[in-house]
Amino acid sequence: MSTTVGNPTIAFWFEFASTYSYPAAMRVEEAARAAGVAVEWRPFLLGPIFVAQGWNDSPFNVYPAKGRYMWRDLARVCAKLDLDLQHPSAFPRNGLTAARVAQIALDEGWGPDFVRAVYTANFAEDREIGESDVIAEIVASLERDPDAVLARATAPENKERLKRTGEEAARLGIFGAPTFVAGEELFWGNDRLEDALAWAKSGAAA
Amino acid sequence: MSTTVGNPTIAFWFEFASTYSYPAAMRVEEAARAAGVAVEWRPFLLGPIFVAQGWNDSPFNVYPAKGRYMWRDLARVCAKLDLDLQHPSAFPRNGLTAARVAQIALDEGWGPDFVRAVYTANFAEDREIGESDVIAEIVASLERDPDAVLARATAPENKERLKRTGEEAARLGIFGAPTFVAGEELFWGNDRLEDALAWAKSGAAA
Repeated sequence: MSTTVGNPTIAFWFEFASTYSYPAAMRVEEAARAAGVAVEWRPFLLGPIFVAQGWNDSPFNVYPAKGRYMWRDLARVCAKLDLDLQHPSAFPRNGLTAARVAQIALDEGWGPDFVRAVYTANFAEDREIGESDVIAEIVASLERDPDAVLARATAPENKERLKRTGEEAARLGIFGAPTFVAGEELFWGNDRLEDALAWAKSGAAA
Repeated sequence: MSTTVGNPTIAFWFEFASTYSYPAAMRVEEAARAAGVAVEWRPFLLGPIFVAQGWNDSPFNVYPAKGRYMWRDLARVCAKLDLDLQHPSAFPRNGLTAARVAQIALDEGWGPDFVRAVYTANFAEDREIGESDVIAEIVASLERDPDAVLARATAPENKERLKRTGEEAARLGIFGAPTFVAGEELFWGNDRLEDALAWAKSGAAA
């Protein structure tokens, strides 16, 4: 069990298509700051992990009763957090381009703003975040050059990096999003954020 | 939306094989009493609901990464509640006889004690609750006559009642356990108990 002395950290693993990643992404920075914990933002793709479990679609579409519940529960969660929610007209949306851009944005220090803007577009504004044009608009709204950013995002080494991240997710045992990782402990779901922060702070061993 | 004036109530839907139903069953009575909310205990079988979703086994066995996570998370949840947990040597165990007996026990006023004793046997003592002998021992430990109770439990009308309960669960949109129902709102999972109690108290409409 790794224990971080003086600078506790959690890794925040998220997928732009993931519904519960939305409230998690919107609140993780503030919650972690209040707890004195650093956040490592880890965009990844759930698709390959779902395919490995035999799903070609979101489990919320594969299992309709679970899907109906999720949308209702998400509405309650967002209402509690005072977050806008608009049931997206398409679900799940393809998070590939957004995840590639997020890697660049995180390198350059505007990652959290970009991540929140994409989630807001998908879940509060019903915009098609799977389209490069929409991602370009979001990048521009953050006063970055969309053409330059998208070129870096689609460069071979950046594509490869996202693939490696996906392999790392599978190796860690991640099967859904959001997942918080503190030391070697996984915490799955927006509602486990506080537990993950407490674990990181305590440096507790299993 | 039904609003209960003066006597807010939640229904607690549980399945004896369900792992997260264990901490929920152990704490629901005390948490509800503290909140001033009554509890209606609803034993049911998840099997038919899982079969309708295409699973012939617990999803925690069907999806091993999710299963590994669940056992670790359950250990953390139980540690927090100071509840013993022993990874059962068989999972899931058949909850049919226990559910039938629970219906009788709830009618006769010893239901919550029986429910907690069965969960303790399954998840803290690694006993085979699928066997009638084990259920009989639990009934005897509560100073009830096992033969008489098991005879009532396996009478046709009691069997039929459990089937109708399962149909009601499906109609309500229940897809897992534990599920708390407050008014027409579903709250799935041990970690949603507090939300369900708050909803019942507020009589809030959707």
